[in-house]
Amino acid sequence: MATTVDIDADRFRESFEAYSAIGATDAGGLHRLALTDEDREARDLLAEDLDDLGLTVRVDELGNTFARRPGRDPDAAPVLVGSHLDSQPNGGRFDGQLGVLTALETLRAFEDAGVETDRPVELVNWTNEEGSRFQQAMLGSSVAVGATDLADALAMEDAEGVTVGEALERIGYDGDESPTIDPGDVHAYLELHVEQGPKLESSGDSVGVVDGVFGLSWMEVRVEGQANHAGPTAMHDRQDALVAATTAAGEIHDLPNRLSEDAVATVGRMDVSPNSINVVPDEVTFTVDVRSYDERVVAAAPDAVEFEVATACEREGTTYEFDRLWSIDPLTFSPVVRDAVAAGAEAAGASHRRLVSGAGHDANYMAQVTESGMLFVPSVDGITHAESEFTEWADCVAGAEAFANATLGLATE
Amino acid sequence: MATTVDIDADRFRESFEAYSAIGATDAGGLHRLALTDEDREARDLLAEDLDDLGLTVRVDELGNTFARRPGRDPDAAPVLVGSHLDSQPNGGRFDGQLGVLTALETLRAFEDAGVETDRPVELVNWTNEEGSRFQQAMLGSSVAVGATDLADALAMEDAEGVTVGEALERIGYDGDESPTIDPGDVHAYLELHVEQGPKLESSGDSVGVVDGVFGLSWMEVRVEGQANHAGPTAMHDRQDALVAATTAAGEIHDLPNRLSEDAVATVGRMDVSPNSINVVPDEVTFTVDVRSYDERVVAAAPDAVEFEVATACEREGTTYEFDRLWSIDPLTFSPVVRDAVAAGAEAAGASHRRLVSGAGHDANYMAQVTESGMLFVPSVDGITHAESEFTEWADCVAGAEAFANATLGLATE
Repeated sequence: MATTVDIDADRFRESFEAYSAIGATDAGGLHRLALTDEDREARDLLAEDLDDLGLTVRVDELGNTFARRPGRDPDAAPVLVGSHLDSQPNGGRFDGQLGVLTALETLRAFEDAGVETDRPVELVNWTNEEGSRFQQAMLGSSVAVGATDLADALAMEDAEGVTVGEALERIGYDGDESPTIDPGDVHAYLELHVEQGPKLESSGDSVGVVDGVFGLSWMEVRVEGQANHAGPTAMHDRQDALVAATTAAGEIHDLPNRLSEDAVATVGRMDVSPNSINVVPDEVTFTVDVRSYDERVVAAAPDAVEFEVATACEREGTTYEFDRLWSIDPLTFSPVVRDAVAAGAEAAGASHRRLVSGAGHDANYMAQVTESGMLFVPSVDGITHAESEFTEWADCVAGAEAFANATLGLATE
Repeated sequence: MATTVDIDADRFRESFEAYSAIGATDAGGLHRLALTDEDREARDLLAEDLDDLGLTVRVDELGNTFARRPGRDPDAAPVLVGSHLDSQPNGGRFDGQLGVLTALETLRAFEDAGVETDRPVELVNWTNEEGSRFQQAMLGSSVAVGATDLADALAMEDAEGVTVGEALERIGYDGDESPTIDPGDVHAYLELHVEQGPKLESSGDSVGVVDGVFGLSWMEVRVEGQANHAGPTAMHDRQDALVAATTAAGEIHDLPNRLSEDAVATVGRMDVSPNSINVVPDEVTFTVDVRSYDERVVAAAPDAVEFEVATACEREGTTYEFDRLWSIDPLTFSPVVRDAVAAGAEAAGASHRRLVSGAGHDANYMAQVTESGMLFVPSVDGITHAESEFTEWADCVAGAEAFANATLGLATE
C-alpha cells in the first residue's frame, strides 16, 4: 500500500484555470453566486471531471454534490473531502474553489498511483457556502447536519424573491438524495481553504494546521436622535444620532485591546437617515461583529458593546435599541484530523504551523457529526472576499499535496 | 396716513389651515416639493387670493410669482415681501409657507385699513427654495439676482431626470417675465421665517430681528481602505475606512469647541461600502457642514477638517480625497430693514430680540441687489425640516403684525 502520494501540479493548474474562467471578472476575480448560470456551469464541469474518473455523481435535495471513490471495505464510513464552488460578488478565485479542486486532484492522484484506501474517499461541493445570494452562509452543510431545516432552506429567497428551491430546479441541481448526514455516516471531514488572514504569510509557511475557529457575536444597534437643520441648531441643543454612533464605533474598535490578544471587532454596516449634508441625522443603524478564540470574550462582547453604546447615547442625549443577532461559540477541530494534516504536510515536505481560523467554514457544521478539520494555504496580504485575493501557486501545490497525503492517512486504518 | 396697521388673526389662521391642507402628511407635516402637483395647487390658491385683492399676478420664466399693490408714487421701487411655498420632503407647515401667508395677510390688512403707501408693496413666492427636488437651494432668488444663469436653472434635473423647465411647463408656471432683479429695481426686501433654532424660544421673545446669516463651508471626504473578512484579519492588519471616518467625524464634531462660540459642525451624510456586517469597509464617503457668523472660522474650517481627516487616515493606514464643495461668507443684513423690523415689532407690541440666522434664505441673495432683511418667529424646540416643526399661533400672529408694520414703515417715506 502506498504511504505517500504525489499530485500532478500541471493538471491541477489546468483545472484551476478552467474553473476560474467560469464567472471570471475583468479584474482577475470570480463572480459566481450560488445557483446562477455560472454556478451551474462550474457544477457541470465538476460532474464531467468526476465522470471521467469513473465516479457516480449524486446530488441531494439541496444541490450538495457528492462522488465516492470506493475503498477496500465497502461498509466503512467514507472520508469526506471538499469545499464550495460558489463565490462572493466580485470575489476571489481561491476562496472555496481551490478546496474543491484539491479534493478532485486528490482523487485523480489516487487513481494515477493506483492507491487503494481502506475507507471510501468522497468528494463534496456544498451549496451556497458564501451566503451572498441567499443570506445564510454555509447553508448546504447546515442542512446536512440538521442545524437548518431543509424546507426552510429551500424557501429562502434572494433579493429578487427567487427561492433556493426554484433556483435549484432552474439549474437542474434539485437532486433526490436526502441531504442528512448523521453521526457515523462519515468517518472524517477535511477541507482545504485559503487562510483569509496574514498568519501563514508572515511566518513563511505553506500549510496551516487549523486548531479551531473563532467564536463570534453579531449585534445590531439602532440609535435615535432628532433631525434638525445643520445651521441654526447649536451643538449643545442637538441629539445627533451619528455623533452617538461614531463615538460608540470608536470605542467598539478599541474593545479588542481590552478584551484579548486575538479579539477583533468590526463595524461593517452603517446606515444614516436622512443622510443629507445639511440635516442633523436622526437615525443611525450599525452592526457589530466581535470574534475571538476565547469563549469568555465572545460571551462578554455584547455587554461590553452595549455599554459603549449606552455611554455614547447618554452623552449625546439619544436613545438606542440593541439587538443580539447571532452568536456562536469558538470551535476546536478534531485532533485526529489535525494530526493527519500535520502528517500530510510532513509527507509532502511542506512547511507548516498551527493556527486558528477567524472565519467559519462548512467544516464547522461537519464538526457536529464527525471528526472535522481544515488545512489552510497562505493568503497574500491576508486579502479575501475581493478580486485581488491571491495565493502563490507553489503554496497551492504544496497545500494540495499535503491534503492528498492527509486524506490518504485518514482513509487508511 | 396710517402709522400702524392691524392684521386679521382669524383670516390669517384660516388661510394657514387652507394652505396647510395642500400636501399635508398624516403626521401633521407638509410634503410639497417644488413644481409638483401640490406646489401647483398651492400656487393656484395664492393666485386666486391675490386676484381677490384685485392684484395682477405675474409669473417669471423661473416660476417666481409676483403681485404688486400700487403706492402713491407710481415710479417708486417697491418693497418686496414674501418667501416660498415649497417644502422639504415630509417637512413642516411653517417653513416658507408662513412667510408667504404673512405677506398676503399684510396686503389684505393694508386693503382693510385703506392704507396708502408711498411705494408699491409687492408679494413674491420664490421657486424651489428648499433645493430638495432640484438640488440647488434658493434657486428662484439666485437666478433673480444673477448668481445662477437662467438657462442653467431651467436645465437642472430632479432624481427622475425631469428638468426645472419641463416641470414648470407641466404645472403651467413657465411665465414670460424676465426673472432678473437689478440693483434699484426693488427698494427693500423683507421675509418672515421660522427661526429653525432655539434662541427666541429660550429668551421668550415672539420676534427676532435678524442681524445676519452664518457663513458656511461644505466639504466631502472619501476615505479608501482595504476590504477584508471581519474574522481572520487582525486589528493591526486592517485599513478600515470606517474606523478612519468615524475617528475623523468624532474630531470634526469637537471642532466648534476650538473654533468659536457660535460655530456648528455637522456630518450629515455617510455612505459605507460594501456595507456588510462581516466585511471590513473599504470605502466611506461623508460630508461636513461647518457654519459660523465669523468669517475667519468659515475660512479656516476646510483646513481644520482636512487635518483631522489626514490624522485619522494616517493612523489607520487609509488614504483619502478631500473636496471643498461650497463656501459662502457670513452676511450682514441691511440696518434699514433691521430698524424697520424692530420698529414694526414695537408697533405690534411684540417682544423682540436681535439674533443671527444659522440658515440661508432667499433674503441672502436679495441682499446682493437691495436693502434686505428678515423677521423670525420662534421654533418650538428649535425643530425644523421635520413634520414636528411647530410655532405657537400667538407667535405667528405677533410676528405677522410686526411684519405688516415693518412693511408699512419701509413703504412709507
